[in-house]
Amino acid sequence: MVRLCNRAHPKIVYAITLFKILCRNAGPGPHVCRELNLLSIHLRQMSDSKTYSQQDIVDMDNIQRLNMINAISGFKSASLIGTVDGSGKENLAIFNSVIHIGSNPPLLGLLVRPLTVPRHTYQNIKETGWFTVNHIRKEFYKRAHHTSGKFREDISEFEACGFKADYSKLCRAPYVKESIVRIGLSFEEETEIKANGTVLIIGAVRELTVPAESIEEDGFIDLEKAGSLTISGLDSYHETVRLSREEFVRLPENLTKNN
Amino acid sequence: MVRLCNRAHPKIVYAITLFKILCRNAGPGPHVCRELNLLSIHLRQMSDSKTYSQQDIVDMDNIQRLNMINAISGFKSASLIGTVDGSGKENLAIFNSVIHIGSNPPLLGLLVRPLTVPRHTYQNIKETGWFTVNHIRKEFYKRAHHTSGKFREDISEFEACGFKADYSKLCRAPYVKESIVRIGLSFEEETEIKANGTVLIIGAVRELTVPAESIEEDGFIDLEKAGSLTISGLDSYHETVRLSREEFVRLPENLTKNN
Repeated sequence: MVRLCNRAHPKIVYAITLFKILCRNAGPGPHVCRELNLLSIHLRQMSDSKTYSQQDIVDMDNIQRLNMINAISGFKSASLIGTVDGSGKENLAIFNSVIHIGSNPPLLGLLVRPLTVPRHTYQNIKETGWFTVNHIRKEFYKRAHHTSGKFREDISEFEACGFKADYSKLCRAPYVKESIVRIGLSFEEETEIKANGTVLIIGAVRELTVPAESIEEDGFIDLEKAGSLTISGLDSYHETVRLSREEFVRLPENLTKNN
Repeated sequence: MVRLCNRAHPKIVYAITLFKILCRNAGPGPHVCRELNLLSIHLRQMSDSKTYSQQDIVDMDNIQRLNMINAISGFKSASLIGTVDGSGKENLAIFNSVIHIGSNPPLLGLLVRPLTVPRHTYQNIKETGWFTVNHIRKEFYKRAHHTSGKFREDISEFEACGFKADYSKLCRAPYVKESIVRIGLSFEEETEIKANGTVLIIGAVRELTVPAESIEEDGFIDLEKAGSLTISGLDSYHETVRLSREEFVRLPENLTKNN
């Protein structure tokens, strides 16, 4: 195998990679053409990149920084969080900060912004001990985004944005009827991030509804089949196209820890 | 507007929605056909869903539960985390748990599994105070997945999985040369989730490189253009197709809090 100097210019590295691929194949079949195309895009992007220092980011306009830093963490989940207060007033809010915490016991996390102003979702979760996570689908993502408006406290986003609340026997918080992947959670713990005052809420999965046809043999839920979307940045909504599921990596004995 | 009883069967709700759409349009144009198709899928999925109780989940086979609970939180980011130990030994590991924490100051989070066995990424971050987040692209996601193998401590996943380490003047941790969205972070704080022992590491964004053509006017980074992938579950890799960026929701005065 050709070994490249660590400091070789990326263009040279790619030219060599390209050459190797072409040599390995008899002629430029569709596979090679696709690789060539990808490499040329990659090459162009690498030679035309922009680097920001921490100071550059601090000096940015607030909106620019907000959009940029919200995007760079990568793709995020797209959920509507349903809650209710002690008097039964319902609240519905869009979040891109639902995360996996653990499977045994089954736990999800929800990051909420600093509690410097009233946060209905947070208050309701603390008041009743329950919340629901409802995946957002293509048919209603624009209405889901609309729940991000700063509605008056006495207005239910369910009604204002055209969603129907749905209750199970167990879960005190309302589900979104339009949603087909729905999770009912009870409040477990919260932890504050000191650096900026955000709060990570941990919920225990108490109830879970998914379309039967999205459940694969090994328990995996095919979110693409269920129509769940993904969010990037604050406001960009995306469908997905699966490339593959990859197998659990089992290494040969001479490479692995347990040897 | 027709008001539906809360307990109307979903099939009836959808039949009525469908009827309304058909009435609003003169004839079944392509838009109506698409909506019809979506509604029929939705209808079928809603009438054929499966609900799991907490006990059902607890009673599941470990692998089933692992796959199911890892999937239900929604789509996740796809990153390679680069670190180095005090003696300069490099480590590279795939994570789907990089999250946005805040934009001002710019902070990202990384959730790591319980520290009951040695975790090289965590140890290296604590030892040197630095780590890098490198977005995963289509050309190398299979090799990126391969870093999840339990390699011996003296083997660098950079070399074993065919990646090149790249250093900046500032960041002590190695970047992945093949990656074009790259973030250098310094350790800020950590917080343990008591419910299962996972640890959330908070990093301050100290350096950020993105392809120039992916930067939009308002600071948003077009991750789709940059070729960043998304992960669902533990092992499913997806490209994305943007539906739209939605505008900031400004409500009429009579609906909003600030009135």
